[in-house]
Amino acid sequence: MATSEPRAAGGDQDPNSANLRPPTTTNEYAWMHGCTRKLGMKICGFLQKNNSLEEKGRLAGQKNLLSCDNSDRDARFRRTETDFSNLFARDLLPAKNGEEPTMQFLLEVVDILTNYVKKTFDRSTKVLDFHHPHQLLEGIEGFNLELSDQPESLEQILVDCRDTLKYGVRTGHPRFFNQLSSGLDIIGLAGEWLTSTANTNMFTYEIAPVFVLMEQLTLKKMREMIGWPNGEGDGLFSPGGAISNMYSVMIARYKYFPEVKTKGMSAAPRLVLFTSEHSHYSIKKAGAALGFGTDNVILLSTDERGRVIPADLEAKILDAKQKGYVPLFVNATAGSTVYGAFDPINEIADICEKYNLWLHVDGAWGGGLLMSRKHRHKLNGIERANSVTWNPHKMMGVPLQCSAILVREKGILAGCNSMCAGYLFQPDKQYDVTYDTGDKAIQCGRHVDIFKFWLMWKAKGTTGFEQHIDKCLDLSQYLYNKIKNREGYEMVFDGVPQHTNVCFWYIPPSLRGMPDGDERREKLHRVAPKIKAMMMESGTTMVGYQPQGNKVNFFRMVVSNPSATQSDIDFLIDEIERLGHDLTLNVSTAGKKRAMREPLEFLTSSGPHRLGVVN
Amino acid sequence: MATSEPRAAGGDQDPNSANLRPPTTTNEYAWMHGCTRKLGMKICGFLQKNNSLEEKGRLAGQKNLLSCDNSDRDARFRRTETDFSNLFARDLLPAKNGEEPTMQFLLEVVDILTNYVKKTFDRSTKVLDFHHPHQLLEGIEGFNLELSDQPESLEQILVDCRDTLKYGVRTGHPRFFNQLSSGLDIIGLAGEWLTSTANTNMFTYEIAPVFVLMEQLTLKKMREMIGWPNGEGDGLFSPGGAISNMYSVMIARYKYFPEVKTKGMSAAPRLVLFTSEHSHYSIKKAGAALGFGTDNVILLSTDERGRVIPADLEAKILDAKQKGYVPLFVNATAGSTVYGAFDPINEIADICEKYNLWLHVDGAWGGGLLMSRKHRHKLNGIERANSVTWNPHKMMGVPLQCSAILVREKGILAGCNSMCAGYLFQPDKQYDVTYDTGDKAIQCGRHVDIFKFWLMWKAKGTTGFEQHIDKCLDLSQYLYNKIKNREGYEMVFDGVPQHTNVCFWYIPPSLRGMPDGDERREKLHRVAPKIKAMMMESGTTMVGYQPQGNKVNFFRMVVSNPSATQSDIDFLIDEIERLGHDLTLNVSTAGKKRAMREPLEFLTSSGPHRLGVVN
Repeated sequence: MATSEPRAAGGDQDPNSANLRPPTTTNEYAWMHGCTRKLGMKICGFLQKNNSLEEKGRLAGQKNLLSCDNSDRDARFRRTETDFSNLFARDLLPAKNGEEPTMQFLLEVVDILTNYVKKTFDRSTKVLDFHHPHQLLEGIEGFNLELSDQPESLEQILVDCRDTLKYGVRTGHPRFFNQLSSGLDIIGLAGEWLTSTANTNMFTYEIAPVFVLMEQLTLKKMREMIGWPNGEGDGLFSPGGAISNMYSVMIARYKYFPEVKTKGMSAAPRLVLFTSEHSHYSIKKAGAALGFGTDNVILLSTDERGRVIPADLEAKILDAKQKGYVPLFVNATAGSTVYGAFDPINEIADICEKYNLWLHVDGAWGGGLLMSRKHRHKLNGIERANSVTWNPHKMMGVPLQCSAILVREKGILAGCNSMCAGYLFQPDKQYDVTYDTGDKAIQCGRHVDIFKFWLMWKAKGTTGFEQHIDKCLDLSQYLYNKIKNREGYEMVFDGVPQHTNVCFWYIPPSLRGMPDGDERREKLHRVAPKIKAMMMESGTTMVGYQPQGNKVNFFRMVVSNPSATQSDIDFLIDEIERLGHDLTLNVSTAGKKRAMREPLEFLTSSGPHRLGVVN
Repeated sequence: MATSEPRAAGGDQDPNSANLRPPTTTNEYAWMHGCTRKLGMKICGFLQKNNSLEEKGRLAGQKNLLSCDNSDRDARFRRTETDFSNLFARDLLPAKNGEEPTMQFLLEVVDILTNYVKKTFDRSTKVLDFHHPHQLLEGIEGFNLELSDQPESLEQILVDCRDTLKYGVRTGHPRFFNQLSSGLDIIGLAGEWLTSTANTNMFTYEIAPVFVLMEQLTLKKMREMIGWPNGEGDGLFSPGGAISNMYSVMIARYKYFPEVKTKGMSAAPRLVLFTSEHSHYSIKKAGAALGFGTDNVILLSTDERGRVIPADLEAKILDAKQKGYVPLFVNATAGSTVYGAFDPINEIADICEKYNLWLHVDGAWGGGLLMSRKHRHKLNGIERANSVTWNPHKMMGVPLQCSAILVREKGILAGCNSMCAGYLFQPDKQYDVTYDTGDKAIQCGRHVDIFKFWLMWKAKGTTGFEQHIDKCLDLSQYLYNKIKNREGYEMVFDGVPQHTNVCFWYIPPSLRGMPDGDERREKLHRVAPKIKAMMMESGTTMVGYQPQGNKVNFFRMVVSNPSATQSDIDFLIDEIERLGHDLTLNVSTAGKKRAMREPLEFLTSSGPHRLGVVN
């Protein structure tokens, strides 16, 4: 099928030659997603009527739209000539005679999705087709986001599906490097489609027997990877790393001050939590939400690579004790969000043991490295943690959402969160009700996040995850080696990155001779946002940036996407240079004045901005 | 296609005649999901070799397996003869030449899923094929849940997908009444498939432009439905009603004691929360998690229909104040979990205004009634609430998960939860960053829960949701009318239910003449669990039960599934009677002794078991 299709112009299989770059290769745009003959023509007609705006992109789109008319699928993909314009949601199952239109409709949707999948891996496709909020809200090209009282036809619904994908971001594209979660794993995708079709809930074995068992077995495997004896312990999949981290703080509090559950925080002394100034902001959010207060989340100093300095932890513990506070909890980050730093867990664990503190390891980003024999040493000591956050939806490429909170002590999750002991989840069922896990969670209903992950593990094996992780780390080292001494680049910290995070400034030629100082810093601060904006407008690639501590905006490159290759890394470098080469960055008069008066004040304070980028 | 297929034996379209009942109609079982020719034969072979166990069900399955060989799909569904036994995950995209196997594999998965969808709506299919945890863990019929180091072939992965569905529960089956969330909406399903394919995250406009806007517009529509002027306010989709309720407590605390965010609960006086004894247990969970303590969640008395007695609220507020506590927050439930009761919001709002308390309405279950002109009066006064929980994944049939927390005051979510003001979500982007909503949430990454709901709203219109809701309420009234005076039934409370919850005891003939007393109560307490267990073993239907207050176990029937009809209600009644007719319920000697000594002690205390069933 697709392999025998005429490929979209520019869709050369060699990634090096498939460099989508406006404006010279406009005709190579191939962002159109699958469309049926009828719908394609309809859209084409619309476009032809409206081609005054954004002419170039539109014409390119039109070309592809028209080509839908007589190509793009073989016999197996051809749908019957269903007229969806006269069909509505009410005609689908469970309607009488609803089976046929239901199957036709779902197949049409699948056609849209499989075309999207194909294009996602095609480097001649844009990563995104950027529009501002007001443009989308105005209903660009007839894409109307407003909801109404009356139903739309299924034809319109299919158009809406296409438009939704068209104006979205291809997070699985080989050149999408913007977040810690990227890639589009086909097995994971299939798993998620099945999960949606099963449409059930994790709270009881009764309605999710298979998924509940899969969760138990998978959590046990993860605990084995951590190194807890026989994989014993407890755990849950939660709706993301922030919630997993919140669980860790809750159970630490329950462990030491169980009466807080019934009496509230007034039953405990003034508790303090410790976490790195480079750690994820969710520890602070948990501190705020759970009633500790952010002032009682004490930030630890780090070395130049962003790793906690154990002596600073001990000093701050002693300081807190002296002030009458009670240290409760230490978070060690395994893979920080910006630098990808791994805190020295063993040294932190020694201190936690000495002072009897709960040790949590936030391995949301770095936990995946446990799957790699080559890299797992970076988490040495994790087996001494009381709890661990590990997000397979980050480094392991599992579709969103998939985050686990793992706990060494069995029963403490239920102790902390259960409300109704034996009565809530009826004890008089015919099966072993210890499999009803709902009361361990702070949620009631809980989405099935396990199946896609379980299925990927089955399909790839532990070794498959290992290869994926090793490859991503290799790629980031390739990037590091390539730019560390390259003209126009400055590394944010020295040495080979511990994770796939490579942090760097691009210095446009106009700044290269300039002496260090406020003006240069102010100008440099504006480079990454400007290049990023141009990237997004071009749709060629996406990479994150942020300031950190007293460092002005820099790029944070991360690789978790298995479809990325060295050629994509090369492309990224070329693209940054192409877009940034001519940046002049005139400092406005106001800016100049500010530069003299208050030199990037926010970058010199040690405030919460250190907690940086989202992920 | 499917309409012209020979239907599975017993698959009569008339729901009344399609009553799947063992043991007389064993041959009518048609639980086999779609299978390819090769795989089908392979499984059949396996079954033929192993048919000593569970002979009857196995043979029924085998019959259907064999029939896969020469039927069940027309040309459009026929896949090429891909040999998946030699293909692995590593052969799929992004592998070189991975496009063809990727498409073949995804189509094979879709075939499994569409067959599952078809069977789900077919009343000759079982609701579930029950097995105990130890049976599934032992690897029943070769279904091996264990994970290994080495990859499995795609053939095995497809078998695993089929098995996962086979041993699961069909929550979309017309006779699945077990949870507040049921049904399988085709548009919602398509929406969820697309969401998984897009695989992005709600935290920034940058990577979820369309979804972020859809969320904003949909939340605004929901606020309009609530009745807040111009739909102004704020909100978020959260991972379920429990988290939405937790948000409401957090923002109430922030509104009155913003310093708790930085200083912790020690900065506030001893705060108390009020909620009905019939309310969902998540308010108590929030109280525990957020540092209030469950003792400071004061339960309000209800009338015999489960509705809060406003005078009791006022009395308890005064009592708390007298004791030096500070009343903060009142939760009014709109549609309680067990009785479906609607608290009198206006009267509660009067009291909240009088004492300056935050009013939250937990409409997780009942919020959907706002879409119905006929039933929305039950939520009169909701426009006076400060915040509202509303789960479209319950009464509105949206696939799991889809829950909204809606807030009248704009900006308070961000005030409460943001950590990093301008620095976290970089302010120097090229677009209007007020669309970056991530910092309003307690999560960092946030799953895209909006699209399926938005798409359903587009496809059904507000009127479509209204029809769905009115139909479900009509059906439950049909059930109520049918059993209220029927021999062998006792209603748990008098009068037409406010929501679709119909709560009743089935009294087997052996208990009908028995005088009220501990022995009868003890026996009656065991009726619902026994019938439920038999239902699950038969796989014919599922309905929930629980005790409540001092009432022994009773059935809680709910209807939210649009595929249910009057015939399914009739079926349920018949099935309860069939399974329960001959129950003798001998009280064991030990039981008799206990009945004399401690008459169902747990049912006479007023403990947390009142918070009842999960949902």
